[in-house]
Amino acid sequence: MDAIPAVTFDVARIRQDFPILSQTHRGRPLVFLDSGASAQKPRAVIEAMVRCMETAYANVHRGAYRLSELATDSYEAARAATARFLNAADPREIVFTRNSTEAMNLVAHSWGRGVMKPGQAVLISELEHHANIVPWQMLRDDKGNELRVCRVTDSGELDMEDLARKLADGKVGLVAVAHMSNVLGTVTPVERIVALAHAHGAKVLLDGSQAAVHRRVDVQAIGCDFYCFTGHKLYGPTGIGVLWARLEHLDRMPPFLGGGDMISSVTFEKTEWAPVPAKFEAGTPPIIEAVGLHAAIDYVTAIGMTAIETHERALVDHAMGRLSEVPGLTLLGRAQDRGGVFAFALDTAHPHDLATLLDRAGIAVRAGRHCAEPLHARFGLENGTTRASFGLYTTKEEVDLLARAVTEAREFFK
Amino acid sequence: MDAIPAVTFDVARIRQDFPILSQTHRGRPLVFLDSGASAQKPRAVIEAMVRCMETAYANVHRGAYRLSELATDSYEAARAATARFLNAADPREIVFTRNSTEAMNLVAHSWGRGVMKPGQAVLISELEHHANIVPWQMLRDDKGNELRVCRVTDSGELDMEDLARKLADGKVGLVAVAHMSNVLGTVTPVERIVALAHAHGAKVLLDGSQAAVHRRVDVQAIGCDFYCFTGHKLYGPTGIGVLWARLEHLDRMPPFLGGGDMISSVTFEKTEWAPVPAKFEAGTPPIIEAVGLHAAIDYVTAIGMTAIETHERALVDHAMGRLSEVPGLTLLGRAQDRGGVFAFALDTAHPHDLATLLDRAGIAVRAGRHCAEPLHARFGLENGTTRASFGLYTTKEEVDLLARAVTEAREFFK
Repeated sequence: MDAIPAVTFDVARIRQDFPILSQTHRGRPLVFLDSGASAQKPRAVIEAMVRCMETAYANVHRGAYRLSELATDSYEAARAATARFLNAADPREIVFTRNSTEAMNLVAHSWGRGVMKPGQAVLISELEHHANIVPWQMLRDDKGNELRVCRVTDSGELDMEDLARKLADGKVGLVAVAHMSNVLGTVTPVERIVALAHAHGAKVLLDGSQAAVHRRVDVQAIGCDFYCFTGHKLYGPTGIGVLWARLEHLDRMPPFLGGGDMISSVTFEKTEWAPVPAKFEAGTPPIIEAVGLHAAIDYVTAIGMTAIETHERALVDHAMGRLSEVPGLTLLGRAQDRGGVFAFALDTAHPHDLATLLDRAGIAVRAGRHCAEPLHARFGLENGTTRASFGLYTTKEEVDLLARAVTEAREFFK
Repeated sequence: MDAIPAVTFDVARIRQDFPILSQTHRGRPLVFLDSGASAQKPRAVIEAMVRCMETAYANVHRGAYRLSELATDSYEAARAATARFLNAADPREIVFTRNSTEAMNLVAHSWGRGVMKPGQAVLISELEHHANIVPWQMLRDDKGNELRVCRVTDSGELDMEDLARKLADGKVGLVAVAHMSNVLGTVTPVERIVALAHAHGAKVLLDGSQAAVHRRVDVQAIGCDFYCFTGHKLYGPTGIGVLWARLEHLDRMPPFLGGGDMISSVTFEKTEWAPVPAKFEAGTPPIIEAVGLHAAIDYVTAIGMTAIETHERALVDHAMGRLSEVPGLTLLGRAQDRGGVFAFALDTAHPHDLATLLDRAGIAVRAGRHCAEPLHARFGLENGTTRASFGLYTTKEEVDLLARAVTEAREFFK
């Protein structure tokens, strides 16, 4: 028996796949620590999109010619690859949207207004991104569905006792929580959440915008009902997001947007919907972007989601050590299970001023409340935080540079 | 005074800008006559997207570092270019959507449900694309707004007397019609429609998906209230569409999708919306696609929309002549003012069989009902039509090839 060759995670080689990372900024190499907002694109993604536009582009579906068949095949192959990426039972369970925000809005409209009863509540948590708060507020204000909020502990984890309490009366129809916080880095105990929710008759939507980038996601093993993520954070293009939902849910849901491609017949009196997933994909879809997303999925899959997770765990441990050595730095969240997102406050500097100074050192981080205002309020940080977030191309040396630059900035602002 | 050099429309040179057009198909050059479904992309668009991903990519807004500022500047520059392209009064009147289908759904949701009264009717026409039918049916079924349909004459033009009749009672809140039919090629008399509608208290939405590609659009001169088009038909990428609306309308409209970037503050109790256009752009927008759309607008603007229209008028006249010589061919629509879209039926062949045979000759056309089933029913063509549609790269020789191939196909199917 041949031994399987050990795959080594060679971050230096990986960095060469990303043209933008060879840039210098004010004479220094670019240290890009904002991948949680949007990741950079490997050459494989860029080239796949160019190839599509230069050699195989046409509108998809119903074109009775070869180019259109090629484009349709590419588009549907992207759907199949996305299904495999999430271990979905069926490619028809994959709906392409613009981004994960639209995926959550789709569920809020088609499941929230179309299937849930007005007496049923939606349960979210304090650590949600606005994309998983505002659609449910709009549902509440429109249809009266109560919005409940699960507490977050001081260490930045979901308060599972509070979750159980808020499910206890059986009135929650949907639990909608992040699989990984975009501020705290916290990875939520999704299997436990699903078990609890299902035991109380609630469906579960997971916002995987962060998590799907950092670890292998198996929607069947998790057992959730809806899962979404977005292309641009997974090293793919903007303009495409993913909603996965169980086929039986999608079948029950009325469509969200109306238009071409989502119908089976139209008269002015009555319109019949197409079967899923077409029912949810009105108009010309993001064809070039689907090809780019497919390339991104192939890219991370070839490296291996487990290898990516292992690399990131080492990086997270390293960062926890380095950042804890920075005097005056308060890290937001100290969850046991966490990914490569670090939001922090510095005693001597406003988050924006700190980010601006770091930018002068060639370090790109984000400052603000990171589309999670309630979470910052929860921790009494209304001014926001500075956030560094990692990608698969992030190195320990970059983490060291960050820690050193923050330490120096602290002195500068004193 | 120096004479302004005459700009000649050099289609051979233009074709060299489109990498895909140099392809051969079964040993023959590609004759791409499906630009009405989606247009091919010039090198300038492809290169702009690559440059964005390789040198200037990051998420937009609130990134306190140079790359993010670059990306934000590019994104907002695309908005400004789009505003100039439509002669909008203000860049804030431009909302980026996924496609024009989403733009119309946005209006159906935010204006239809948020501003219009349930007693107000929507007036569309028989020549609409499903994208301008289904959202209004959904509004009718959801909120009870009557849906009226203006007739189309035998020559494929809007029956303006019928339009006036259906506006007469003053109950129509919105007239929503295509600026150019994607089947008949008919260009509708938009100024007259606007005058009539406004005189009866109705707002006007124009679906410019086809028209914006073929002629110069000046929303202020037209005087309409809403205008939409899509990037991929204008030689730009998929994944981006445009809604233009008067600022005072956008200000009155509640948001459509909820999430990040469209809020000014969020608590669990109450959320305040951001000012327009951010209010309508939830989540990470199509950044790379906006850059591509900008390049597409620059590309057609450099050629000149008037030059494009002149080229197309000559092509349309040529095609009318050539196609009328094909025995057994029935052309759908003979409007006075028309663009380069030709849908036809052939006496001896099913539309799909004809398209398949044309594909063997390297000619890419579309067969079906082109997302306009009611229009095909109106003309008694439930089997659909075969459609050839032109782009700025289409030549008279290609039209000749089409006419000859259809003539030969007719014999083949006899």
